[in-house]
Amino acid sequence: MPVNHLLLFQSHLIIEFNMNSKPDILVIGAGYVGLASAVFLATKGYHVTVAEKNDSTVSQLQKGKLHFREQLLAKNLKQVVNSKKLQVSLPDKKIYQDSKIIFIAIDSANQSSWKMRMGSFTKIAQWIGGKKHKNAPVIILKSTNIIGFSEQFRKLLDKTPFGEHIKLVVNPEFLREGFAFEDTVKPWRIIIGSDNKNDAKPLLDIYKNIYSSKIPIVKTDCKSAELIKLASNVYLAHRLAFIHEIADFARLEKLDVESIKKGIGLDQRIGLDYFTPGLGFGGSCLPKDCILINSDESKNSYKFESAIGAMSVNEKLIKNLIKNLIKSLGDLRGQKITILGAAFKSEIDDTRGSRAVVLAQALKKRGAKIVFNDPYLSKSEKLIAGTFTLESDLNKAVKASSAIIIGTPHKKFKSLKPTMLAKKVKLQFVVDYFGLLNNAKWEKQGFKFI
Amino acid sequence: MPVNHLLLFQSHLIIEFNMNSKPDILVIGAGYVGLASAVFLATKGYHVTVAEKNDSTVSQLQKGKLHFREQLLAKNLKQVVNSKKLQVSLPDKKIYQDSKIIFIAIDSANQSSWKMRMGSFTKIAQWIGGKKHKNAPVIILKSTNIIGFSEQFRKLLDKTPFGEHIKLVVNPEFLREGFAFEDTVKPWRIIIGSDNKNDAKPLLDIYKNIYSSKIPIVKTDCKSAELIKLASNVYLAHRLAFIHEIADFARLEKLDVESIKKGIGLDQRIGLDYFTPGLGFGGSCLPKDCILINSDESKNSYKFESAIGAMSVNEKLIKNLIKNLIKSLGDLRGQKITILGAAFKSEIDDTRGSRAVVLAQALKKRGAKIVFNDPYLSKSEKLIAGTFTLESDLNKAVKASSAIIIGTPHKKFKSLKPTMLAKKVKLQFVVDYFGLLNNAKWEKQGFKFI
Repeated sequence: MPVNHLLLFQSHLIIEFNMNSKPDILVIGAGYVGLASAVFLATKGYHVTVAEKNDSTVSQLQKGKLHFREQLLAKNLKQVVNSKKLQVSLPDKKIYQDSKIIFIAIDSANQSSWKMRMGSFTKIAQWIGGKKHKNAPVIILKSTNIIGFSEQFRKLLDKTPFGEHIKLVVNPEFLREGFAFEDTVKPWRIIIGSDNKNDAKPLLDIYKNIYSSKIPIVKTDCKSAELIKLASNVYLAHRLAFIHEIADFARLEKLDVESIKKGIGLDQRIGLDYFTPGLGFGGSCLPKDCILINSDESKNSYKFESAIGAMSVNEKLIKNLIKNLIKSLGDLRGQKITILGAAFKSEIDDTRGSRAVVLAQALKKRGAKIVFNDPYLSKSEKLIAGTFTLESDLNKAVKASSAIIIGTPHKKFKSLKPTMLAKKVKLQFVVDYFGLLNNAKWEKQGFKFI
Repeated sequence: MPVNHLLLFQSHLIIEFNMNSKPDILVIGAGYVGLASAVFLATKGYHVTVAEKNDSTVSQLQKGKLHFREQLLAKNLKQVVNSKKLQVSLPDKKIYQDSKIIFIAIDSANQSSWKMRMGSFTKIAQWIGGKKHKNAPVIILKSTNIIGFSEQFRKLLDKTPFGEHIKLVVNPEFLREGFAFEDTVKPWRIIIGSDNKNDAKPLLDIYKNIYSSKIPIVKTDCKSAELIKLASNVYLAHRLAFIHEIADFARLEKLDVESIKKGIGLDQRIGLDYFTPGLGFGGSCLPKDCILINSDESKNSYKFESAIGAMSVNEKLIKNLIKNLIKSLGDLRGQKITILGAAFKSEIDDTRGSRAVVLAQALKKRGAKIVFNDPYLSKSEKLIAGTFTLESDLNKAVKASSAIIIGTPHKKFKSLKPTMLAKKVKLQFVVDYFGLLNNAKWEKQGFKFI
């Protein structure tokens, strides 16, 4: 809650007036989804409070420092923290109860069991539904949920003393990691799901204020909005799985992956964007949403084959890669394998759902010694630390290695010098599913592509 | 072989000159693939002979009449037949042996077993490879083949007396039925696969002559070209299966299919084109290519899950539809069901691979009496005649019917009058997976959508 608002707390009329022109906003969750919305709204003149449970993240953000890599978001965050348009706080019952516009942008599902974090949602419902309001607040679910979650959350709200009047809107985010701010400022579309007509009005008023009328708004019910969110990511996973599978076959048959990709993608109904072969689709969204769309918690027995098929291609890729590695390297036990890049996509520092890490885990099971090198990662990186070696010196990383595998297509790896690397490694095998390297140049130095 | 060419047959030099400037062309197969190429080349001044084994098709084409529905192709066919640039003949050994540029555009696989028609290809190889040539002819495979078919065909050629010098090119077609001529004149891309560098030159010379340099040409090997062809159609099937599955779920859950489709497709990486729910993907290409890509004859053990998954969604759609019909109508035995539209897509008269026909077969197995109405079909339509009633009078078609199902989204059905139909039918159930009808208008007249 911004300071000027608290000062005016006694004067009910003035607060109400303030609410109607530019209502104060609470954003729960300081991940890239919550922060992108919070910072954008703050740049548009709204007073925004971000509630975040992680102490160190809160104190870092309070200094205007972003806790992950995203340039434009970092720059704007600094400005709105300095101008006091955006404040960051630990979760606080009073803030929750005094807010009329509440975005929920927490990690809605557990990252390993993929069960919805019902505990967090129950607490939010109890806090917000614990106070009587003259004008009921609106809760906007931005987090990705299982299909039908809003129905379950509605029940949680209805159980609280004053929860049944709370408005509920499903307004899923569609942000590319690394471009969360750009995508928040200029979305391709806005999805607004609500089961009661009036529930969406406060949010629509804000969006009319901050977005161009050219951005299409799709108004629908809550469940359809939930489906749209999951299905959009499943579609992308499904599309990537397609080209991954074609490339997998092409590699096995020694065909020309690049011309095949081009030949298919030049069909204008198919396209070449978002169509790059690799180690499978990863990240914190695509695999997760392929699981969530088929979640048992969804209370429907429908099985989306598109999601199941996509996940299965992802597994097959790793299996076939390991099979081919063994064909070339023999038994992997004790062999050092260097993976260049651990992030789940290029030019970012996030390893959540990284296929390079999935591959590393599978190779480790086979007894290989994995060393990562990634220019964007620090040694404290959670998924790496304790499990794999992260070696920032490239020479050390590849020394005595049996195979170099491109794990993330960071642009920096394009300029690797095969002449230099040939002298360091033990066996000259390379895996580059991304088509990042100049094969001819590497082969000239004795490297063999698997 | 055009008349002027035969007249000059004695004079070797003049013939060779003629070959180099605009070589005469033989196209084997007068389906829409063969004819579109043949007619286009003829409009560009080439002398083209089309060889077709069906007597009645030959005599019809010789009169300049197209044997299927495609306006622009029909118009241009008439012109080039009149100007004698295009001739049509039954298969003839001499014509085959005298041709230097030979397009093969026959139905390459049997329409029910999906086995390659090796008999036809063997005969073609034997005829063409049976004569010695000063300059070896080039055979261009336009038909869709299993992956690795060109290798098998190469072996067939090599076994013939003079076949080993014959050039072989895989140049797959990507034509939309109903738009074959447009797509031949202005393709999105041209794929040229050959395993010997010089093999493709004669075809490249022709294409440089008839196509703008802006149209991308992807040069690759034969097998990659075969994969590009199959994979492109599998991609489209896979894309359609995705939206079909999402719509299937949405209907079961009574969600708003239209807003869901829009909400997903407005993601610019997804798009709204080629993304329309329906009874599954059909036609003579998509299901066929999903089977061919996994053909046992391909001599690889790879299983493309994208193709398997897409086919499986297609089956699920019909199963779920029948389940829902039974829920509303009860036992289907003896009940009349009217299917509006039998063609595999709108505004055409081709029922090959039509989902409406697949549905009809499944309903017939359950004992339902199926009556089709389709403004584009004649009673002689192969897949209908003898199996289902084709009733051209709409009133008679719907009379005493238990359900009306949109089988093909022909535009004409948009203007159906529910007031009138309500009086004719027995039970007022409607199935419209295409979103063609105005639900509110129909519901007002007592119809219930399944």
